[in-house]
Amino acid sequence: MTTVKPRGKMVNAFNPDAPSELSERERQMVEDRHHVLAPSYRLFYQEPVHIVRGLGTRLWDGDGTEFLDAYNNVVSVGHGRPEVIGAVERQMRQLCTHTRYLHEGILGYANDLLGTLRETMPEAQLMFTCTGSEANDLAVRIAKYHTGHEGVIVTSEAYHGNSDLTAGFSPSLGDRSPLGTWVRQIPAPDSYRIRADDIAPMMLQQVRSQIEDLQRRGNGLAAFIVDSIFASDGIFADPTDFLKPVADLVHEAGGLFIADEVQCGFARTGSHMWGHARHHVQPDLMTMGKPMGNGYPVAGVAARPEVVAEFGYDQRYFNTFGGNTVAMAAAQATLDVILGEELQANSQRVGALIQAGLNDLAAEYEQLGDVRGSGLYIAAECVTDPETKAPDAQTAAAIVNGMRKRRVLISATGPNANVLKIRPPLVFSEQDVDWLLSCLEQTLREDLLALVATR
Amino acid sequence: MTTVKPRGKMVNAFNPDAPSELSERERQMVEDRHHVLAPSYRLFYQEPVHIVRGLGTRLWDGDGTEFLDAYNNVVSVGHGRPEVIGAVERQMRQLCTHTRYLHEGILGYANDLLGTLRETMPEAQLMFTCTGSEANDLAVRIAKYHTGHEGVIVTSEAYHGNSDLTAGFSPSLGDRSPLGTWVRQIPAPDSYRIRADDIAPMMLQQVRSQIEDLQRRGNGLAAFIVDSIFASDGIFADPTDFLKPVADLVHEAGGLFIADEVQCGFARTGSHMWGHARHHVQPDLMTMGKPMGNGYPVAGVAARPEVVAEFGYDQRYFNTFGGNTVAMAAAQATLDVILGEELQANSQRVGALIQAGLNDLAAEYEQLGDVRGSGLYIAAECVTDPETKAPDAQTAAAIVNGMRKRRVLISATGPNANVLKIRPPLVFSEQDVDWLLSCLEQTLREDLLALVATR
Repeated sequence: MTTVKPRGKMVNAFNPDAPSELSERERQMVEDRHHVLAPSYRLFYQEPVHIVRGLGTRLWDGDGTEFLDAYNNVVSVGHGRPEVIGAVERQMRQLCTHTRYLHEGILGYANDLLGTLRETMPEAQLMFTCTGSEANDLAVRIAKYHTGHEGVIVTSEAYHGNSDLTAGFSPSLGDRSPLGTWVRQIPAPDSYRIRADDIAPMMLQQVRSQIEDLQRRGNGLAAFIVDSIFASDGIFADPTDFLKPVADLVHEAGGLFIADEVQCGFARTGSHMWGHARHHVQPDLMTMGKPMGNGYPVAGVAARPEVVAEFGYDQRYFNTFGGNTVAMAAAQATLDVILGEELQANSQRVGALIQAGLNDLAAEYEQLGDVRGSGLYIAAECVTDPETKAPDAQTAAAIVNGMRKRRVLISATGPNANVLKIRPPLVFSEQDVDWLLSCLEQTLREDLLALVATR
Repeated sequence: MTTVKPRGKMVNAFNPDAPSELSERERQMVEDRHHVLAPSYRLFYQEPVHIVRGLGTRLWDGDGTEFLDAYNNVVSVGHGRPEVIGAVERQMRQLCTHTRYLHEGILGYANDLLGTLRETMPEAQLMFTCTGSEANDLAVRIAKYHTGHEGVIVTSEAYHGNSDLTAGFSPSLGDRSPLGTWVRQIPAPDSYRIRADDIAPMMLQQVRSQIEDLQRRGNGLAAFIVDSIFASDGIFADPTDFLKPVADLVHEAGGLFIADEVQCGFARTGSHMWGHARHHVQPDLMTMGKPMGNGYPVAGVAARPEVVAEFGYDQRYFNTFGGNTVAMAAAQATLDVILGEELQANSQRVGALIQAGLNDLAAEYEQLGDVRGSGLYIAAECVTDPETKAPDAQTAAAIVNGMRKRRVLISATGPNANVLKIRPPLVFSEQDVDWLLSCLEQTLREDLLALVATR
């Protein structure tokens, strides 16, 4: 089997050099991947999963073994969702073409999408792309063109995309991925280690000092871009009082506030349709992606008209597949299900059940130092000691792989890879919660003991 | 109706301030677009088309009026192609998930795709993205990382994408779209104005001088990237003897040769599956997009393993939708049809018929100064005078809009917007050729006279 040299940073990555219990068939697939795919491709879990079918919150491997999906946010309204599949199939049969011909689909969807933004982005205009990376790349291009500045401020472990520009302001990609000289980092609002009342002043002071640095070096501030659930920073849902003053400061400096809703948008956080709305902030630009078409590649940017006016008039922007008739049909069907089945309320209700269960387990297992999140974006942080709060990546990995062995898929996140990340489809049910929590309880009971014994 | 200020450059763009014969319904749609979409969105034709259905090479508007599609290369195996729709629908019902789980689909497709590259890129490895822009962005990121240089050489009117990086080396976006300081332009191989024998030495000398300039300024050469059909430069298919020596020169300078196959790949040019193969060159990186999934957003990069090794080991690159199970099913079905129905041979045969017909018309109408192309990528260049070869954008626009009025869709291209661009789905038939040519003959006969009268 092809061996692989030490790699760039990735949480919950399969290591082909470490032992794993793959079948001969799967071992062959891993080897085939090494031949035909570039080495950037990485698998999840120390025993990678080989899934062949999905429905709702469930996945099945080739042997018919059933898995619970408590991780995939892309298929937000559920795997194999007939409404979305039907809409895509019908529109493909009808017409698949781009935005340079008139078509009703894009107008209907744009109206419905803008309807969800009436309070925080009234009058917004839309641009459609295929991926969240394209959306963030475009948003920052617009911000640079509008402000005439180039500086970008992000959180210390932010991830905003895989394009040259967005990777340049995505420190979570690790030390070997070049950051732009025009990028500045601020700490995440670590509510586990910083008092809630101290977070707003800390964030404000940090942003102010980075703006000053960008101005002194002549970059100026183009944008502050933030994922308001701080997914790659370790998931911090609360407090929600600090982004509004930061946005004011950013505006004073002539910069724009960009809400990256790729992770937290489309009802994910339960209490609101959009993450920035939880924080009572009105963004200049908002980007969206992943769950927008329940797996169909569709993403977009919402912009205040003043901000996008010059860019739009001066520059042609055409995205061949962006806003195409099928993408709009997929996005429309997905939004209709989210709204029609009140999945935002489900996210809030079911997410609260998960957090309650995690808190019960945390009372028993001190390795779970903190439980937090909003809606169905939930974190449980693993520590070696609840007093020092020292991050424990080994325990997080043991739990993630232990859950996988027991057929429940979650993952981990954060700069220290020690934060369990639970982010299921929005259609997660109470029965799913029971399976998730009982599996976690069993994993903690059986696997943590073994882990402690090996230390 | 909302009025629009003067705009960034775009060939064959609808001007809402000029007269057009839109119905009340369509006028309302144009206005709705101005409200909900950012001003970057532009329509084709002075009388924009409002298409509701497509099948094969035909499109229909809401009134049931039939159009001939002689322009859209995305739906390369035809509009509403049942094999592709069936594959997408089946895979969506089965499973739609990403590349961090094991799945057969990506391996099967990768093998088949690499099979088409055995001669020019043996041993290549693949990375999948969603758009051609993402593919070009990624290819140049890889080139920069591998070479340690940042300079990029392109043709003078190149278009390589809409991301910050790729727009930075896409001069065709016009004066108001910023070019990178690390970008150098060389002239296109204008076979209408330069003797065939002079093109190779001219290209070589131009590339050499730009490499020297990049080296002197400390940028160095990361990549020479080229669309070998020179689509946005005005479509130049021949000669095919100059890219090989250019590639050798690029390698001597420590740079990489990137073949952008978004326009010319997947059998488009008739004689070969890939544009670079017509030029007998072995690229270091190749990018593909548009027709890859017959409208499903899928694109990719092929790389020599040595070139992508460090990037792949050091840097995580994950594209949520790139290489997902459904994208691979769409791409597989599309490739199967191209190979199974020998659409490359059809492209060559039918393209030759179109060129022969165009040459007959050019003998009669001296406004058609040059006819050229390969397979189903065909150009007819409009000039005011065949002696001076002065570009005639007005005639090209009159022909494009005259054809559209007669229900045949083509467009124009080139730095002077005077080159008719004929680029139909690969399933274009002899009957389609007859319609196309008779419509063009009628347009030339009826509309050019009227145009001359107004001059």
